[in-house]
Amino acid sequence: MLRIFIGVIGAGDCSVDVFKLAEEVGERIAEAGAVLVCGGLSGVMEAAAKGAKKQGGITIGILPGIDKDHANPYIDFPIVTGLGEGRNLLVVRNSDAVIAFPGEFGTLSEIAFSLKLGKPVVGLSTWKVSDKIIQAKNAEEAVSIALNQAQSLQKSYE
Amino acid sequence: MLRIFIGVIGAGDCSVDVFKLAEEVGERIAEAGAVLVCGGLSGVMEAAAKGAKKQGGITIGILPGIDKDHANPYIDFPIVTGLGEGRNLLVVRNSDAVIAFPGEFGTLSEIAFSLKLGKPVVGLSTWKVSDKIIQAKNAEEAVSIALNQAQSLQKSYE
Amino acid sequence: MLRIFIGVIGAGDCSVDVFKLAEEVGERIAEAGAVLVCGGLSGVMEAAAKGAKKQGGITIGILPGIDKDHANPYIDFPIVTGLGEGRNLLVVRNSDAVIAFPGEFGTLSEIAFSLKLGKPVVGLSTWKVSDKIIQAKNAEEAVSIALNQAQSLQKSYE
Amino acid sequence: MLRIFIGVIGAGDCSVDVFKLAEEVGERIAEAGAVLVCGGLSGVMEAAAKGAKKQGGITIGILPGIDKDHANPYIDFPIVTGLGEGRNLLVVRNSDAVIAFPGEFGTLSEIAFSLKLGKPVVGLSTWKVSDKIIQAKNAEEAVSIALNQAQSLQKSYE
Repeated sequence: MLRIFIGVIGAGDCSVDVFKLAEEVGERIAEAGAVLVCGGLSGVMEAAAKGAKKQGGITIGILPGIDKDHANPYIDFPIVTGLGEGRNLLVVRNSDAVIAFPGEFGTLSEIAFSLKLGKPVVGLSTWKVSDKIIQAKNAEEAVSIALNQAQSLQKSYE
Repeated sequence: MLRIFIGVIGAGDCSVDVFKLAEEVGERIAEAGAVLVCGGLSGVMEAAAKGAKKQGGITIGILPGIDKDHANPYIDFPIVTGLGEGRNLLVVRNSDAVIAFPGEFGTLSEIAFSLKLGKPVVGLSTWKVSDKIIQAKNAEEAVSIALNQAQSLQKSYE
Repeated sequence: MLRIFIGVIGAGDCSVDVFKLAEEVGERIAEAGAVLVCGGLSGVMEAAAKGAKKQGGITIGILPGIDKDHANPYIDFPIVTGLGEGRNLLVVRNSDAVIAFPGEFGTLSEIAFSLKLGKPVVGLSTWKVSDKIIQAKNAEEAVSIALNQAQSLQKSYE
Repeated sequence: MLRIFIGVIGAGDCSVDVFKLAEEVGERIAEAGAVLVCGGLSGVMEAAAKGAKKQGGITIGILPGIDKDHANPYIDFPIVTGLGEGRNLLVVRNSDAVIAFPGEFGTLSEIAFSLKLGKPVVGLSTWKVSDKIIQAKNAEEAVSIALNQAQSLQKSYE
């Protein structure tokens, strides 16, 4: 069975509270043995990657540009794309489930693509654009739901 | 000065009323001498293209797949991409302003990208995810606003 | 039946002789009623577009960046992509047959993709990497072969 | 300093001899502590990944489709793209140097992009389209050259 990839999406510039929450989400993803996928840059992406590395997890950052050095320091495997915002779609395509933090229109595009592709989306104070977004009240719940949803999908394909 | 490209986005499957509205929007885009850009498929995209051709306009359809034949019959220039939903970003990048109709998550991704890229978005009963979407009450107003916004942007770059 | 799209590929910086040859190729594509597709920039791309416009043809330029203004002045419809060199694949995907001029590695990537996708490639003093490239001795022959090949493919799909 | 990523490119269908050679290349990449990047499918890609895993290395497969399950069993991190042949460019962009095996036009497109982007290319009986391709006579030499070239580039950027 393939490892589960959990995507974490959200603003490149976030408050201290959101940073802490994303860090905890990253820690819990790593503790569960899942791979963290994100956009590889700052803010929510960096927080989640930092948390995952604290717990010895694996982090993949899918970057808009072509320079690996633009990845935050907690990214194990920077994947450059040169697609600009088009990399948002690749973040989603590579995630078995997505945890969405507060963010702006880039985050919204990722939520939209996730819902379009039928990927589970767990929301932590993010865009409320659909009842299909499962609202979580804290990091623990968010990761637990995301993992369950991703596992159910994997089983249904087997 | 380059011709203005107006993007029309919305569901691939729409009601008769929305179809008529999109057709009128297409007509008015053509009457103004602007080029219609859309996703090239059915529903709102076909309606707008049909309207534009009625008035002798020019229509470009940016398709998700690699087969030109999937374009609706009112598309003059089908541009195939093979990028799947990634073509949504190309529809936006090729539009100087966007008119958004009711749609699902694909449409939402296009609105999100438009706002992210700072493109003017005019809404006709579409997703209300930002105050930056200029709500129009009919086809005439929608096209008029879209053209004005696109022209202002062109001027500001000159 | 859809209009035939003929791709013209080659260096962005070319000799006067190659420029003249590409211009004649563009003229002949337009005279035949086909649409010229190219990368939209300078050199061979500009020469072919200039020739096509001289004969009242239609020209589409698929650009690497996101700025329409980077198209040469003979492009009717600049299609921006923001994919960088990835737009080379889109030039090929949008061509029913390709005419290849001298060029460097970008041109070689387009020839490779054309052959990979089974698109007819006509060569005018270009890379000789495969017997599948049909060598032409002048502009007239190149366009004639490209059109015949494109038409045969269209018929075989009907 | 970022880990070095070595790309291995070549046919999806290869002879036993080429398979063995690619396997040894993969082993040596892993022994050197570099990450193997490839297209994630069969043939040369699978051989190199198999070799790398034998030596406890890390393997990334950048896939044309959107289904991770299409990766060969030796890929640690399948990155799906949905870009079709466009993923060839991403394989190149993610490689600090490329080792090229015998292959067809897909491989040729990757060599072309590598040369276009100024990435070092080491050839093992592959396309001889440029003097810039450094010909190696065996797996050991190929990996050694690729690593040296990649390190020189990294240093020149520091």
